[in-house]
Amino acid sequence: MIELDDVLAARERVEGVARRTPVSHSHVFSDLVGAEVHLKSETFQRTGAFKIRGATNRIATLSEDARAAGVVTASAGNHAQGVALAATRTGVDATIVMPEYAPVSKVEATEGYGGTVVLHGADYDAAAERAREIEAEEGRTYVHAFNDDAVMAGQGTIGLEIVEDLPEVDTVVVPVGGGGLIGGIATAVTARKPDARVVGVEAAGAPKYVESLAAGELVTLDAVDTIADGIAARRGGERPFEIIQERVDDVVTVSDSQVAVAVTYALERAKTLVEGAGAVGLAALLGGAIDVEPDEVVVPVLSGGNIDVNTLTTVLLRGLVETGRYLKIRTVLPDRPGALVELAELISEARANIYAVSHDRTSRDVAMDDAEIEVEIETRGPDHVEALLSRLEAAGYEVEVQA
Amino acid sequence: MIELDDVLAARERVEGVARRTPVSHSHVFSDLVGAEVHLKSETFQRTGAFKIRGATNRIATLSEDARAAGVVTASAGNHAQGVALAATRTGVDATIVMPEYAPVSKVEATEGYGGTVVLHGADYDAAAERAREIEAEEGRTYVHAFNDDAVMAGQGTIGLEIVEDLPEVDTVVVPVGGGGLIGGIATAVTARKPDARVVGVEAAGAPKYVESLAAGELVTLDAVDTIADGIAARRGGERPFEIIQERVDDVVTVSDSQVAVAVTYALERAKTLVEGAGAVGLAALLGGAIDVEPDEVVVPVLSGGNIDVNTLTTVLLRGLVETGRYLKIRTVLPDRPGALVELAELISEARANIYAVSHDRTSRDVAMDDAEIEVEIETRGPDHVEALLSRLEAAGYEVEVQA
Repeated sequence: MIELDDVLAARERVEGVARRTPVSHSHVFSDLVGAEVHLKSETFQRTGAFKIRGATNRIATLSEDARAAGVVTASAGNHAQGVALAATRTGVDATIVMPEYAPVSKVEATEGYGGTVVLHGADYDAAAERAREIEAEEGRTYVHAFNDDAVMAGQGTIGLEIVEDLPEVDTVVVPVGGGGLIGGIATAVTARKPDARVVGVEAAGAPKYVESLAAGELVTLDAVDTIADGIAARRGGERPFEIIQERVDDVVTVSDSQVAVAVTYALERAKTLVEGAGAVGLAALLGGAIDVEPDEVVVPVLSGGNIDVNTLTTVLLRGLVETGRYLKIRTVLPDRPGALVELAELISEARANIYAVSHDRTSRDVAMDDAEIEVEIETRGPDHVEALLSRLEAAGYEVEVQA
Repeated sequence: MIELDDVLAARERVEGVARRTPVSHSHVFSDLVGAEVHLKSETFQRTGAFKIRGATNRIATLSEDARAAGVVTASAGNHAQGVALAATRTGVDATIVMPEYAPVSKVEATEGYGGTVVLHGADYDAAAERAREIEAEEGRTYVHAFNDDAVMAGQGTIGLEIVEDLPEVDTVVVPVGGGGLIGGIATAVTARKPDARVVGVEAAGAPKYVESLAAGELVTLDAVDTIADGIAARRGGERPFEIIQERVDDVVTVSDSQVAVAVTYALERAKTLVEGAGAVGLAALLGGAIDVEPDEVVVPVLSGGNIDVNTLTTVLLRGLVETGRYLKIRTVLPDRPGALVELAELISEARANIYAVSHDRTSRDVAMDDAEIEVEIETRGPDHVEALLSRLEAAGYEVEVQA
């Protein structure tokens, strides 16, 4: 198991490459969570995520020969960019194997940071296999994303920064994918502040460590399903698992809906773009998955912000639906002049705004003289949605909620 | 005209209420702009924008009687929230008149900060008229959003922070709406660092000060049209105008497209949500509207981040189109099995991703046996768009670009 000294040594190496990210108090999240919430925003890290810390430490601990031979890894996400930039910044050649389906934007970003991208295979496993072949063929060092002591020690520098910037910290809440991030942070935080809690958060659709803790051994999930794709791993690693068993107080899970709400609130209230995987800590706090006291000083780690605009739009829409601020209804209008105006007035009287209306006179589900209509509405919250729906029903509309 | 001492005095009053926001170096924007770019992020200010600084200073300088009588203002935007929170935090009652069309979210936010909202009139002018009536009827003090010395001095505290955090600053780039922000900042920056430049940026669709400077007197625009609604004012104020003439080096303009690109890049690259009005300084730098040297230390002020999710989605789409990363084409497919697959393969071979396809067999523009198709595509940039279009045309498709 890594210890505090490993993290302290990592810091010396990580400093020149990674950025020290802010720990900032959030009024709005303190109010929403019912505790003193400070955000540790690794979203503002170089490459948009924490991975560069671990990669830098791993590469800095290579021998001269190993440095000259270069590194290789497999990743479709933040680890790819972290390794690419860490290697470039320290003069080491990096090959990154990405699955063929990898989004153009991720490929471009990784190349932009100086990595050589090899596209191979239909999924991560196939890409990883190819990376292992390259490791053997070219004598490169494989940089594992999490099951590696030097990588974990690098991520642990986040824990040092939290305790230094906020010595009164009570609880640190950490997204858990492969477990490298929480392995490092738990090591640093519990060593520096033994009475502080470190809580991990997994997606409910990928609860590898929750199940592993219950089983007392590392288990492999049959399948994973979550919008938090950055932590959608089927299996953790032996090294992080040991630390999690020893130094982490609890690992809890959050639903996709809770993640969507957290991403939406982070953007709306903290003006910060957080990807799904990076928002699970905040999601757990907002959703009440972690018990907190009103004066408790709680730090969710926002671990990354690399979410493409297309995915973001989908997640935000879900976040608005979940918080009762977007409502899509379907109803039938009598097909006569003024019918739409009447409905619009009813909605307006309820002080809701109409975003969009689509009118369909050809639907086969309605009588020939009627028209089916779909209305997208901005609402103020769950109570408002309920009040609006009651009002429409009282006025004789049969309303079907679409989202 | 206000002087440095006014800003220094304001700082004492503003400190306890407003947050000191970060000035942080941006690798990615330095690369894109070709200078040393540091972002002053008032997006992370309480209420999501700088307005709380000026409002706090204004309210703090009221007499005891005036404090007891309360304040009133008119605003559909950030000023409303700034005044509401500044008043609440200092124990003063605030009435905010908002136009009746004001978005629910803005009304709720203003009420959430403790202001009493009065909805009145169809536009800002009508709301402002009502606010002046309330001023007279209730003896409240009207807090003007920009044409006010105490308000400007409060905004000027941003300039102090920039010069303190970054003494080597060469150029500060400031969004210009009514002019209160730049009036304050220019006063602080030019006093502290006489050889620094302060450059203002207006929306091309609302160039009130550009025209006023050319005319040598304050002019009123006939109409304004910009997606940067926070700075869509038809007329500036005498007090800011005097300072702009004296202390601002230049005022330039940016197009809506440039604003959309800046908002998109701020979100994607800096993980920071910036509203259109808050992004015009960045837009001017990205768009080359301001000449900079490679070693010049440039600070765009990101003045606010209050953009609703719906508007954001629209702006981001435009940003993607402008940067060649989203392409919507319309073409005609021969209506036979496999035609769509062929097209999809062609697009895939060009390494572009298809987001969505809509197929329309009923369009009247095409021959009975053909089908019109609309394809939304993720691309990598302008060159990629061009290559893709050439490829499609070479394969015999007549392509019409939709966006």
